[in-house]
Amino acid sequence: MPLLEGQIRSCIGITEPDIASSDPTNLQTSIRRECSQYIINGRKWFTSGALHPNAKFVIVMGLSDPKPDADSHARHSMVIVPLNTPGLKIERNVAILNHLSADGHCEITYRDVRVPISNLIGEEGRGFALAQARLGPGRVHHCMRTIGQCEVALELMCERALERKAFGKHLADYANIQDWIAKSRMEIEQARLLTLKAAWIMDRSGNKSARTEIAAIKVVAARLQTRVVDRAIQVFGAMGLTPDTPLAFLYTWGRALRFIDGPDEVHQRSIAREELNKAKRNRRTMTDYLVPPVT
Amino acid sequence: MPLLEGQIRSCIGITEPDIASSDPTNLQTSIRRECSQYIINGRKWFTSGALHPNAKFVIVMGLSDPKPDADSHARHSMVIVPLNTPGLKIERNVAILNHLSADGHCEITYRDVRVPISNLIGEEGRGFALAQARLGPGRVHHCMRTIGQCEVALELMCERALERKAFGKHLADYANIQDWIAKSRMEIEQARLLTLKAAWIMDRSGNKSARTEIAAIKVVAARLQTRVVDRAIQVFGAMGLTPDTPLAFLYTWGRALRFIDGPDEVHQRSIAREELNKAKRNRRTMTDYLVPPVT
Amino acid sequence: MPLLEGQIRSCIGITEPDIASSDPTNLQTSIRRECSQYIINGRKWFTSGALHPNAKFVIVMGLSDPKPDADSHARHSMVIVPLNTPGLKIERNVAILNHLSADGHCEITYRDVRVPISNLIGEEGRGFALAQARLGPGRVHHCMRTIGQCEVALELMCERALERKAFGKHLADYANIQDWIAKSRMEIEQARLLTLKAAWIMDRSGNKSARTEIAAIKVVAARLQTRVVDRAIQVFGAMGLTPDTPLAFLYTWGRALRFIDGPDEVHQRSIAREELNKAKRNRRTMTDYLVPPVT
Amino acid sequence: MPLLEGQIRSCIGITEPDIASSDPTNLQTSIRRECSQYIINGRKWFTSGALHPNAKFVIVMGLSDPKPDADSHARHSMVIVPLNTPGLKIERNVAILNHLSADGHCEITYRDVRVPISNLIGEEGRGFALAQARLGPGRVHHCMRTIGQCEVALELMCERALERKAFGKHLADYANIQDWIAKSRMEIEQARLLTLKAAWIMDRSGNKSARTEIAAIKVVAARLQTRVVDRAIQVFGAMGLTPDTPLAFLYTWGRALRFIDGPDEVHQRSIAREELNKAKRNRRTMTDYLVPPVT
Repeated sequence: MPLLEGQIRSCIGITEPDIASSDPTNLQTSIRRECSQYIINGRKWFTSGALHPNAKFVIVMGLSDPKPDADSHARHSMVIVPLNTPGLKIERNVAILNHLSADGHCEITYRDVRVPISNLIGEEGRGFALAQARLGPGRVHHCMRTIGQCEVALELMCERALERKAFGKHLADYANIQDWIAKSRMEIEQARLLTLKAAWIMDRSGNKSARTEIAAIKVVAARLQTRVVDRAIQVFGAMGLTPDTPLAFLYTWGRALRFIDGPDEVHQRSIAREELNKAKRNRRTMTDYLVPPVT
Repeated sequence: MPLLEGQIRSCIGITEPDIASSDPTNLQTSIRRECSQYIINGRKWFTSGALHPNAKFVIVMGLSDPKPDADSHARHSMVIVPLNTPGLKIERNVAILNHLSADGHCEITYRDVRVPISNLIGEEGRGFALAQARLGPGRVHHCMRTIGQCEVALELMCERALERKAFGKHLADYANIQDWIAKSRMEIEQARLLTLKAAWIMDRSGNKSARTEIAAIKVVAARLQTRVVDRAIQVFGAMGLTPDTPLAFLYTWGRALRFIDGPDEVHQRSIAREELNKAKRNRRTMTDYLVPPVT
Repeated sequence: MPLLEGQIRSCIGITEPDIASSDPTNLQTSIRRECSQYIINGRKWFTSGALHPNAKFVIVMGLSDPKPDADSHARHSMVIVPLNTPGLKIERNVAILNHLSADGHCEITYRDVRVPISNLIGEEGRGFALAQARLGPGRVHHCMRTIGQCEVALELMCERALERKAFGKHLADYANIQDWIAKSRMEIEQARLLTLKAAWIMDRSGNKSARTEIAAIKVVAARLQTRVVDRAIQVFGAMGLTPDTPLAFLYTWGRALRFIDGPDEVHQRSIAREELNKAKRNRRTMTDYLVPPVT
Repeated sequence: MPLLEGQIRSCIGITEPDIASSDPTNLQTSIRRECSQYIINGRKWFTSGALHPNAKFVIVMGLSDPKPDADSHARHSMVIVPLNTPGLKIERNVAILNHLSADGHCEITYRDVRVPISNLIGEEGRGFALAQARLGPGRVHHCMRTIGQCEVALELMCERALERKAFGKHLADYANIQDWIAKSRMEIEQARLLTLKAAWIMDRSGNKSARTEIAAIKVVAARLQTRVVDRAIQVFGAMGLTPDTPLAFLYTWGRALRFIDGPDEVHQRSIAREELNKAKRNRRTMTDYLVPPVT
């Protein structure tokens, strides 16, 4: 398999401009079957890696069953589209917080793009299920890398604080800088443990059981990274914003992670609903704890 | 042993007014030996439990070796002082955030209080070591209870949000309330894991090895509790401040915990020093990661 | 007028238990007219000042037109009820964050309480309009006092930091404490200016024109107060929670102010709606600033 | 005057790599007099505008009196150095948070650069005084522009929230987004008033009298801008990070402003010292407010 051997690379096209892709029922790219072919029309962006020299195909998710009365989570499919298919056009490489990736976060238009029906992944209408199955493990992977980035940022923060002087003292001797260091350590430690817990549940009981924990670490890790990196930048002084340290790039990644695989607010919404459902089932705390009203 | 059987109770007198007791070299109560007796003079406050009907004695920590050139961590001792010893006077029960505990957080003066030298705990000059040995496990215990309190507050928050309406919707349907619930769950989960990790290190390698983790959870748990309880209060509306819910009392405890066993800032200082020491030993991140300057 | 001369005092009964009183259409106390009398039935709490020796009457707001199809803002009225009217019962004085006010924040039940119709304030159905007219100026007044409290807390914080030592330095020499002081000063200064602006608009153009500014300072001042007082408490150490400083009481007031005259969230909702309405009218920023999409 | 008429442009070289330039006694570039010339040696970066086609000269600040016993604020001078002077080399244009300005934020080396002594600005040793005189008004100017940027970001946030849907509702109808909008409005309003106050004091009593207010708005405006822009980015979704909106560039500017003209921490230090000095002069709050200790 050239893909598994790393000779070629894939990329994935889910997100679309103009809609809130975090609510996937918003996706509008159409995948229409005609005889033995799917015809794809639409516009995707943030298709990462499409400019890599080895990138050969994109997995496109789109609406294969446009009937509005269909189950909104069973109307989308995923098909494999080679990057050199006629009608597929890489419009541009989109910069993220000023950063232009060499491998590309591309905006791609699809105009009557035709692929054989054998390019369908799984079954028609299973697009969501496939996306969900992939996103869980993907998120944990992102969080693990992100926590490693936090560690780098904290180490850099400490080393810079030890060598940089202002007003006769090293920055490491100022109590506000010490507080930043301590907070970063406390927060990283907690985020790492939550990531490990999510991974542990996935290993023991499967991705679905870890749904809430995965949503939680996704939110926690992305916010933490931008917070820790921001502190490190401040300790470095203006140098922290230059390309002479990895901090500016790390910040860019961390900020983007607050959208990648769903914005914070969508995950918080899921976590809250889960918590509220638990409360609906229990309904005992109030009775146990509250003082009965005066009568 | 009447103490272990719960027939009598002890209390402990470390904190003194007018000094920052978090730096214990500040403690000024004197424990002077004279023949077969110790004579105690000084003033302590926040001696918790001294008004409990079964309270029989207080463990007083004071300066037994006043020579300023002595090792500042080997100058204090702990002695057992029965509460009915002449010269010991409970001056008042001190309210904490308006709350007057029935068991008392007492201000106690010691004027020429005499106890036999057999009341010394351990050896002379071992006061700090004893305090440290006790405080580690004590802190974990506080954190465990505190996280349980956070769970109660979160459950109450959810149940109230499910039943309370404003402007035509239940509070549980407002996205800002949902964010509070989700944040509370994410934060509690992380704090619990850090507490468990600290306890696990203590069990495997002893209290001293877990020093940094214990400092961290102490800071994390106290701040978290006041944050979660504050959100719950806000969801309850003014009722959240009344005695009809446990929230006002919980808040009081959580706020006090930011001082009990040392204020946040002292613990953060320790954590930062530990982290900076690691950085001093390594000093490799900078070389690995930073772009060499233009020359 | 004995009221204006301060010989007697009034109190006001709007808030009810069990409902979110910030949405006043929730109010359930009934004011039913029968011949020349109003008959009042219901339960109110947080009727402040009802235990003051000079308190003589309470102004009760209730539902005088229970028809559900009536304009929901024209169904309530206000009537004057002497505290000694039969059927009016002060059930209890409700503690707020453990603090029991001598003048009382009272829970009062009204069971077939009868007053002459001449006790109506203004006209029937004008309860809301009256409440609104009173609340604007009342809020500015609360904010002014609150900012004065912030100044007291900041002064106390500075003085304590100058005299208290830990680990060989005065707290005032630690950079984290300095940051708290600086942030407090920056925040107080901004809140004061916003309060003055609101008052200036009220003087020039009337209370209604200042609606958004009043909502804003109400939220800003209450949050700021608890933030500044919390920092001051932390600088004082445990003493900050005792009755030996005014901080514990100030915190209690500040926390209650996040509900008094409406919780933060209700005011933020109004401010956001005002801002969104402006955006609906303009709709030009997007066109001016955004890059047109690739076509 | 070609400069005033905008035909040529100047730039300024104060900041140096490797030192904390916020403490200007750290500056190491040397300006040595030899007969009728100054000889300049050193390295500067963040010399903004040096690549603009009309840029003709840089004002360099350096150490003209290297004697360590001299008054540390009277050892630096400023001289005019034409950009085409031999020995001056623009090493590179430094990207800021990935953004490469066309006009350049340049790193410039000076190797035996010679200029006539008539290029001295003011007198020898007056470098600090000149810098201070310029920085006050410069900071207010930065803050004014920054607050305008906050207004743009808030307008964009509202317009996007009004048109973007997720899970069946416009973002503008979610209470958490409304809270962001309201907080942004409340914070911008306060920052604007503080900026106006600083400008008003400068107009009436001169720059020096407004020192504390200028320090305060500098900190407040930079932090506020990144906070408001960050919220706007989150409302836009991933598009907020692309060049299709001005938000990514605005964020970059706001983050850099937390260093331009001094990092937040240096300004907070000044504000705290001013506040502590006031407290030293007064020392009455404690006596007025604190309960005398039990004796």
